[in-house]
Amino acid sequence: MHLDHAACSRQSTAVLDAVAQHARHEAELGGYVAEQAADGLLQQGRSVLAGLVGMAAADVAFTESASASVRTLVSRWRLAPGARVGVLPGEYWQNVAAFTDAGLTPVVLPADALGRADLAGVERALRDDPPAFVHLTLVASHRGVVQPGREVAALCRAAGVPLVLDVAQAVGHVDCDLGADAAYGTSRKWLAGPRGVGFLVLRPAVGTRLTPLVGPELYDDRPAVDHARWYESHDAHVAGRIGLVVAVGEHLAAGPHRVRERLAALGRATRERLDGRGGWRVAEPLDEPTAITTLRPPADVDVRQVAARLRAEHSLLTTAAGRERAPRELSGPVLRVSPHLDSTLEQLDVLATALAP
Amino acid sequence: MHLDHAACSRQSTAVLDAVAQHARHEAELGGYVAEQAADGLLQQGRSVLAGLVGMAAADVAFTESASASVRTLVSRWRLAPGARVGVLPGEYWQNVAAFTDAGLTPVVLPADALGRADLAGVERALRDDPPAFVHLTLVASHRGVVQPGREVAALCRAAGVPLVLDVAQAVGHVDCDLGADAAYGTSRKWLAGPRGVGFLVLRPAVGTRLTPLVGPELYDDRPAVDHARWYESHDAHVAGRIGLVVAVGEHLAAGPHRVRERLAALGRATRERLDGRGGWRVAEPLDEPTAITTLRPPADVDVRQVAARLRAEHSLLTTAAGRERAPRELSGPVLRVSPHLDSTLEQLDVLATALAP
Repeated sequence: MHLDHAACSRQSTAVLDAVAQHARHEAELGGYVAEQAADGLLQQGRSVLAGLVGMAAADVAFTESASASVRTLVSRWRLAPGARVGVLPGEYWQNVAAFTDAGLTPVVLPADALGRADLAGVERALRDDPPAFVHLTLVASHRGVVQPGREVAALCRAAGVPLVLDVAQAVGHVDCDLGADAAYGTSRKWLAGPRGVGFLVLRPAVGTRLTPLVGPELYDDRPAVDHARWYESHDAHVAGRIGLVVAVGEHLAAGPHRVRERLAALGRATRERLDGRGGWRVAEPLDEPTAITTLRPPADVDVRQVAARLRAEHSLLTTAAGRERAPRELSGPVLRVSPHLDSTLEQLDVLATALAP
Repeated sequence: MHLDHAACSRQSTAVLDAVAQHARHEAELGGYVAEQAADGLLQQGRSVLAGLVGMAAADVAFTESASASVRTLVSRWRLAPGARVGVLPGEYWQNVAAFTDAGLTPVVLPADALGRADLAGVERALRDDPPAFVHLTLVASHRGVVQPGREVAALCRAAGVPLVLDVAQAVGHVDCDLGADAAYGTSRKWLAGPRGVGFLVLRPAVGTRLTPLVGPELYDDRPAVDHARWYESHDAHVAGRIGLVVAVGEHLAAGPHRVRERLAALGRATRERLDGRGGWRVAEPLDEPTAITTLRPPADVDVRQVAARLRAEHSLLTTAAGRERAPRELSGPVLRVSPHLDSTLEQLDVLATALAP
């Protein structure tokens, strides 16, 4: 029983088939010929992905992962050494590592006890001492709280500070069309696409501030391509990109609004069943509109051991999320439960019983 | 007719099936559980890949591509700003871009008219003014010449200068077990594995000079893993890594020595058929032991148009390699012909006729 979609979702048969079929085409036609033949489909996928974050197909680069995307973004952005990036206290550790590695200085924006952006405080910070850009992880991997992305985007726009959204846990899960200047995410979580595929979406105004590792000036014969394509990788899991396009198509067919409502209902059902059970406490508000629930353990309970026991004895897949994911926000590991559309209330009942019989 | 294996090889049915099967496992068991279940197979693959470059399983990191590998290597290596890296005149442009982007200064080592390392000159350069490391692309993408890797490795060892080998075009094609300190390559060329998978292999002595983006000190609970694993990507095309392991297994089963001999014979057969044909000139010595042949066009012939015509009219897949690949060495585009074990002499005859009826 897979209650771990925030880690890696289950691909549909149609997605698996599309990936396998493209791989066969690569063997039959040659890798680059097959990619060229799939160009229209890939461009359609860029268009739909862009739409999910309110941008255009020309703004989309396929990458290998969300982490590859953020590393590309911050390493290619022409910023002064030590330039400051505004983040919330619960910012994902690997993003913080990417920022400091790129010579940036993360500065912490105010948030409430739950880790949600304090809008008045953010407004003040943007006015008094604006960072080079704000980076907001719309839904965290260690806590199923949705940040007020639209409101933060409006504050950033008013302050003239670009907003970058990490939508790795948010796309296909909550609304991500919020007016950000750049956004990036991954295929394998709520969109239920293949592993090893991610995306980076940049408005042209951000694009002009980036320098590609290999740009048109290095070409003998300069190709004319959309601005974001300079950040797209070439030796890539193209079959997986095709799979992501199919997965995004399935997401549209299911109706993004209906998907969000169902996921929010699953989150509420999870929290209602689990909060207080055997001393475990849910971190999120019970009606937070996400399908990610995180549980703080009772005293002296080892979360990793519990996750291992749930898997071994009950075939229940969850995640023990370590404190390192957000050291400023977590005081210890939490148990993360993340059902998707294929999960059932019965599975949540089994989990509740397994957690505290 | 696929005569373009230096671009992207044709995966076998066994490789395609292994990739598709792992993707199904991901959907059935969960992505991370499936990866854990494949741990033994992946480690076996690391061991075999390591063996091909004379290192150990603990030295291997799976990556997304050769270019991801070299970027990781040079961006994580603690070198003084401006540190010099010794390269040959024909160094691959994207490698040079990765070096300069990492703040390194490429310095050109001496080579003969063909682009092959001038060993006496290299020895002098290493003695008089040793660079921080030497980077050698064992077989180039724009010319099917094998560099004297073993001899360069001995010179580097004597001078105390680390040697990094780019084996993207060499692994599965020529001997790569030459005594280098680091090596990296890709799955999709001569090993005939999936796209979107690469590898980086580091001796422990090199490993100690690198700092991972996210290392053990950032973990709440420090995991004990092999040194190279800190450079391995996590949100990855793991199914493709499984495919590469199967492809490497097939390479071993075919007998690396026999594969090399056959590829060298195909290269010779290609060059004998094509040199001088319709005014095209082969760049390599006819008996160079590789399967990559590059052809300089007759005056006023557009290589890209010829490659397009060969494909459209004769179903012959080749590559028009632009001058940008090696601007210090190429004076214009070349036509690259690269047969693999599944290519036939008849296909080469068809190409010869198509090139100049």
